[in-house]
Amino acid sequence: MIAQTPQPPYYAVIFTSVRTNIDEGYGDMAVEMVELARQQEGFLGVESARNNVGITVSYWESVDAIKNWKANARHLFAQQQGRDKWYLNYKVRICRVEHDYTF
Amino acid sequence: MIAQTPQPPYYAVIFTSVRTNIDEGYGDMAVEMVELARQQEGFLGVESARNNVGITVSYWESVDAIKNWKANARHLFAQQQGRDKWYLNYKVRICRVEHDYTF
Repeated sequence: MIAQTPQPPYYAVIFTSVRTNIDEGYGDMAVEMVELARQQEGFLGVESARNNVGITVSYWESVDAIKNWKANARHLFAQQQGRDKWYLNYKVRICRVEHDYTF
Repeated sequence: MIAQTPQPPYYAVIFTSVRTNIDEGYGDMAVEMVELARQQEGFLGVESARNNVGITVSYWESVDAIKNWKANARHLFAQQQGRDKWYLNYKVRICRVEHDYTF
């Protein structure tokens, strides 16, 4: 559940969102997107939780891997569905992980 | 609930954790630590959610601000309590936020 990522540096995409009350298709698409992300070149792992706000952090080898995933055709469709139905608002932050430690 | 952060670059600390079943003092300390973090120089915001895994992302102006917060005496006590009682395991990732966008 805690992503097993390699030694830094690597990259993180922090996706923070607030949902609408529309569930139509959301759960299936969320599962599909995680499965699809795992198949992408450069994917390292993902962590996700939701209460009032949802936070999904995906980890990647490079900025190019993130750009390729953002431009994936099925993912583009999911992003548009998200803006049309599932999300009131969201913020995406692209980060370089410089240091990490574990307990 | 989505942190209102300034234009990048800035820094993020991604704290991903798995809890024990020990709740003793946890809720009060979690609230106290967020209140104390907000008072630190260079603090920009925080987002948090928990299901199977907990994800708390705090945002900071600089690496020095993060180091000062990590070394705060009351926070050091909370970190030790966390390892002794509340967390089975956790991972901390220090990141430079290079780009962001909002919907």
